[in-house]
Amino acid sequence: MTIGDSAPALALRPPLGEHVRRYVPALDWLRRYRRQDLSGDAMAGLIVAIMLVPQGMAYAQLAGLPPQAGLYASIVPLVLYGLLASSRYVNMGPTAISSLLVATGIGQLAAEGNAEYWDLALVLAFLVGIIRIVMGLLGVGFLVNFLSHSVLAGFTSAAVLIIGASQVEHLLGIDVPRFGTFHEALISILVRAAETNPITLAIGLASAALLYYFRGPLPRQLRRWRVPPTIREPVTRAAPLAVVALTTVLVWGLGLDRSAAVRIVGEIPSGLPPLTLPSFDLGRWQALLPSALAISLVGYVESISSAKTLASKRRERLDANQELLATGAANLGAAFTGGYPISGSFSRSAVNFAAGARTGLSNVVTAAAITLTVLFLTPLLYFLPQAALGAIIIAAIFGLVDIAFLRLVWRYSQADTAALLITFLAVLELGVERGILVGIVASLALYLWRTSHPHVAVVGRLGSSEHFRNVKRYPVQTHPHILAIRVDSSLYFANANIFCDLLRASLADRPEIRHVVLIGSSVNFIDASAVEALDSLVQELRDAGVAFHLADFKGRVMDRLDRVGFASRMGEGRIFLSAHEAILALGPE
Amino acid sequence: MTIGDSAPALALRPPLGEHVRRYVPALDWLRRYRRQDLSGDAMAGLIVAIMLVPQGMAYAQLAGLPPQAGLYASIVPLVLYGLLASSRYVNMGPTAISSLLVATGIGQLAAEGNAEYWDLALVLAFLVGIIRIVMGLLGVGFLVNFLSHSVLAGFTSAAVLIIGASQVEHLLGIDVPRFGTFHEALISILVRAAETNPITLAIGLASAALLYYFRGPLPRQLRRWRVPPTIREPVTRAAPLAVVALTTVLVWGLGLDRSAAVRIVGEIPSGLPPLTLPSFDLGRWQALLPSALAISLVGYVESISSAKTLASKRRERLDANQELLATGAANLGAAFTGGYPISGSFSRSAVNFAAGARTGLSNVVTAAAITLTVLFLTPLLYFLPQAALGAIIIAAIFGLVDIAFLRLVWRYSQADTAALLITFLAVLELGVERGILVGIVASLALYLWRTSHPHVAVVGRLGSSEHFRNVKRYPVQTHPHILAIRVDSSLYFANANIFCDLLRASLADRPEIRHVVLIGSSVNFIDASAVEALDSLVQELRDAGVAFHLADFKGRVMDRLDRVGFASRMGEGRIFLSAHEAILALGPE
Repeated sequence: MTIGDSAPALALRPPLGEHVRRYVPALDWLRRYRRQDLSGDAMAGLIVAIMLVPQGMAYAQLAGLPPQAGLYASIVPLVLYGLLASSRYVNMGPTAISSLLVATGIGQLAAEGNAEYWDLALVLAFLVGIIRIVMGLLGVGFLVNFLSHSVLAGFTSAAVLIIGASQVEHLLGIDVPRFGTFHEALISILVRAAETNPITLAIGLASAALLYYFRGPLPRQLRRWRVPPTIREPVTRAAPLAVVALTTVLVWGLGLDRSAAVRIVGEIPSGLPPLTLPSFDLGRWQALLPSALAISLVGYVESISSAKTLASKRRERLDANQELLATGAANLGAAFTGGYPISGSFSRSAVNFAAGARTGLSNVVTAAAITLTVLFLTPLLYFLPQAALGAIIIAAIFGLVDIAFLRLVWRYSQADTAALLITFLAVLELGVERGILVGIVASLALYLWRTSHPHVAVVGRLGSSEHFRNVKRYPVQTHPHILAIRVDSSLYFANANIFCDLLRASLADRPEIRHVVLIGSSVNFIDASAVEALDSLVQELRDAGVAFHLADFKGRVMDRLDRVGFASRMGEGRIFLSAHEAILALGPE
Repeated sequence: MTIGDSAPALALRPPLGEHVRRYVPALDWLRRYRRQDLSGDAMAGLIVAIMLVPQGMAYAQLAGLPPQAGLYASIVPLVLYGLLASSRYVNMGPTAISSLLVATGIGQLAAEGNAEYWDLALVLAFLVGIIRIVMGLLGVGFLVNFLSHSVLAGFTSAAVLIIGASQVEHLLGIDVPRFGTFHEALISILVRAAETNPITLAIGLASAALLYYFRGPLPRQLRRWRVPPTIREPVTRAAPLAVVALTTVLVWGLGLDRSAAVRIVGEIPSGLPPLTLPSFDLGRWQALLPSALAISLVGYVESISSAKTLASKRRERLDANQELLATGAANLGAAFTGGYPISGSFSRSAVNFAAGARTGLSNVVTAAAITLTVLFLTPLLYFLPQAALGAIIIAAIFGLVDIAFLRLVWRYSQADTAALLITFLAVLELGVERGILVGIVASLALYLWRTSHPHVAVVGRLGSSEHFRNVKRYPVQTHPHILAIRVDSSLYFANANIFCDLLRASLADRPEIRHVVLIGSSVNFIDASAVEALDSLVQELRDAGVAFHLADFKGRVMDRLDRVGFASRMGEGRIFLSAHEAILALGPE
C-alpha cells in the first residue's frame, strides 16, 4: 500500500489511503515492523496476560458482573486498541476505577446478577465508545484538563475507600446490601460483621499475604539469587495468578465450597466471546448518560496519562485525539462482544513498557493469550473463591493513591487542598458521578475566585536601576505626584471592576497625584468589559485632572486596544515601553 | 452623639456608636450638614420627583401592577436608602429593568390584576432585600462582577425589545396575552393589530412626539432664549409630567374613555402607603427565588454602576457592601409598604447629580414630594390614559442600549461578541432569568477556553540587547541546543497539560536540544496540578538528557515552588533572574 507515498505534495484532497493511514497507525508501524520487535512484544504481551486473567475476573466482580465479562472485555477491545492507538505501550482492559463507575452507574437501575444488569453494561460501553469517538473527531480532548489533578486525587482517594469497602463482603463472606453513601456502607458492614465466615476470611488473608510476598520479599530474593530478569519479571507479575491457582486447588481439594460454605466463582462458560447487541432504548441511554460521561472522562484520563508518561520516556509523539478514537473503538468492541467499559491501565501499561513492548502488537498478543484462556482454561476456575478475587482487587488499588501528590498539595496550596477535600467528601457522600461534578465546579470556582482578586502592587524605582519593585517589600524611590501601579493578572470582567476600585481607592486618599502609570508586564489579555471599565476610569481621571499612562504592555494586548482607539481617548495619557521610561518622562516636576 | 469620637484608639471592641455610624452613613453627613447643601438637595429632590411620579406609575404598569404600587415604592424605600447609602447621588425607585424582571418572574405564577399578583411582588421585594443584606454582610458584592459587561449589554438590548413589545398593547389599545418567547409575542401583536384603537394610538403617538420635543428641540430653544438653568432644568425634565397632564385633560375633556373606549388608569386610592406584610409561604419563596436572585444581581449592578460613576466624578469613596445593605433595606421598605422591587436608576441619578444633590437628603425630599402626590393629587390622575404611560416607558428605555459599547465589542473581540449575542438570543427566546444564566455560563466558558489555550512563544535574543522576542516576529539569535520558551499565562489545571504537550512536541522534532529555558515573566501563579505536570515533564526531560531551567519568574511564584522543593528536583536545571542571564550561562557550547 503506497498510494499515500506517491501522492503529489500539493494535492488538495489527500487520497483515501492517507485518511486510512492517519486513523490507523498500525498501517504505519506494521510496514516497518522488524523481527527483533516481535520478541519484545510477545514477552510483554504474555506477562501482561498473566496479570490480566485474574485482574479481569476480579474487576468484573467489582463491576457486579460475572467473571467472564472481564475476560471478554480483554480480547476484541485489545486488538482494536492495539491497531488504532497512537500509544505503543498502553494496555487496554478492565480497570478498578472504570469498574467502580460501572457498578455505581448500573447499580441504581438493575439488580446485580440480573440479566438486565449485563445488558446495561453493554449499553454503557457502547455510549462510552460513541462519546469518545465524537470527542476525538471534534478534537475536544483538551476538555479532560478541566478535571484537575487535585480533583482526580480527591476522587481516586475516595474511590479506593469505596472499592475497598465493596470487597469486604467477599473477604468476610457476608452479604452487604448495595449501599448509598460511604458511611452507610461502613455501618452495614459493622452490623453484619458477626456473620463472618472464618474460612473465607482465612482464604482472603492468606491471599493478601501471598500478594504481599510476591510484591516485596520475593523480587529481592530472586535478585539475590541472580535470577535473570527474563524469568524474574514474569514470576513476580504472576502473584495474582498464583493466588488464583493455590486458592482454587485448596477449595477443590478440601471441598470448602460445601463443607464451609465458601463462595466460589462457579461455572464460567468455555468458548469465544459471544456477539452481543447493546439495546437501543433511548430511556436507558438517557439514564446511563451521566455514568457514560463520567467513565468517558475519567477513563480517558487514566489512558492518556499512562500513554503520555510512557511516550515521553522515549521522546515519542502522542496524538491525544487518536487516543480518544482508539479507546472509543475499544469500548465499542467491548459492547459488541459481551464486555463492559474499559480503559488504559496504569499498572499494566507500566509492566508492558518495562517488559519490552515495542508496538501495539503486545496488546494483540495479550488478547490471544486471553482467548486461549476462555477457550480451554475456564473449567479449571470453577472452584476459585470470591475472597481471592477480593484480595486481588484490594492489593491492586493501594497503588492508585498518589501519596506524594497528596503531600505536595497539602504543603503547596490551600485552594488546591480545598478542591481535593471537597471532591473526596462529595464522592464518598454524594456518589461518584455527582462527586466528580462537585469537584469540577469547586475547582473552577476556586480558579475564578483567584483570578477575580488580582494582586496589585504600587511600585517604585529600586536604587538607580531600571527595576521597579513593590513599595511594601523594597526601599524604593517614588514621586508624590505619580502613582506607578502593577497588576499581576490579565484584566477581564470578573476582576476589572475590582482592580479599578482599588485604583480609585488609592487616589481618593491622595489628591496630590497627577499621573497614574499602569504597568502591564503581566497582563496577557484584556477583555471588552475590562476595556470599558478602563475607559470609564480614564474619563473619570481626566475629569479629576489626572493623566492615565500605560507602560510595559505586550504588543498583542496593545494591538487589540488600538482596534478600538483606546489610546486616542487617553487625552494627555501616553504609552511607554517600560516603567523606567515613564518615570523618566513624568519624573520630578 | 460623640461616643464614637471619644473612644480610645486601642479599644478592642468598638463601642456601639461606632457600629451604628458604620452602617448608617447619614449620622456622619447629617452632623456636618451645611445650610448651602440644603438648596442643592431640595432642588435636585424636587426635579427627580417630577420625573418619578409619571415613571413610577408607568413602570408599575410594566411590572403588571396598579400605578399606585410605583408611587408607594418611591416613599419609604427612598428615605431608608437616603439614610443608609454610601452613595450621595443615586436615586432609588422603580426602574424599567427591575419592573420587567418582576413581570416575568410573577407572570408565571399569578394572573395580572389578581390580588395575589401584588402580594407576590411584595414577597419578591422582601426576598431581594434579604438577599442583598446577606450579601452585604458577607461582603460578597464582588460576585456581581461575574455578570460581565458583554452579558449585561446583551441582556439589556434584549430587555429593551421585550419591554417595547410589552407596551405595544397599551399603545394600540389591544389585548395581547402574556407571552412566552419574543417571537411569539411579535406574532400575537401582528395577529391582533387589526383591532387597534385609532384614538388610543393617536394619544400614544402624540405623547411620543411631546417627549421627543422636550428632549431635543425644547432645551435648545430655552438655551437660545437664555433661560437660566435653574428654570431650564426642571422644565426639560417635566416632559413625562406634561404628557400625563395633557393626555389626562384631553381624555377627561372629550370623554374619550367612554366615547372611544380609551383605556384609562382609573381610581388610584388617596392616602399614605398601606402597611403590608409579605406572605411567609415557603412554597412561594422557592418559586420566586430565581427571580429574586436575578433582580438582586441585575438591580444591584444598575445601582452600583450609577453610584460608582458619580462618586468618582467627585473623587469620593464608595463602599460597595454598604450599597448592598442600603438597597436591601430599601427593598425591605418596599415589601412592607405596598411597593415592589426597586433599584438605583441610572437616568434619575444622573439628573439628581446634575441638579446639585449633595447628600442622601435629596432622596428624602423626593419621597416627601411623592407623599404629597399620593395624599392629594391621585384623584386628578383618574383619566390618565394607559397609552401615555406606554409612551413614557418606551421613551425611557431607548437610553438603556449602550450603542458605543456594542460597537466597541464588535470591533474588539469575537469572544465578547459571542457572549453578548448568546445572552441576547437566550434572553429573547428562553426568558430573562434563564437567559442571564446562559450568558453567565457562556462568558465563563469563553474565559476558561481562552486561559486554557495559552499563547506560547519560542524566543531568541534581539540583536545585542538583553531583550528576548518571539522568533516568528523578530530576526533573533538562537542556539540550536537551547529552547527558550515564554508562556503568556498563569499555569493551572486547564492549561498545564496543553502547555507541557506543546513543549514535548517541540522537543520530539529536535533531538539536538540539551537545555529548555522556561521564561515566566507572565506567570502570575502556578497551581498544584501544574506543579505536578511540570514535575513530570522535568523528570522525563532528565531521563532524556535535557536540563530544564526557569528564568524571570516572580518572587511570589518562586516562594511557593520552594515550599515543595521544586528546584531540588530539577537536577542540573537552574533558576535564572532573566532570560539573558540564562543564555549567557548556557550559551554557545
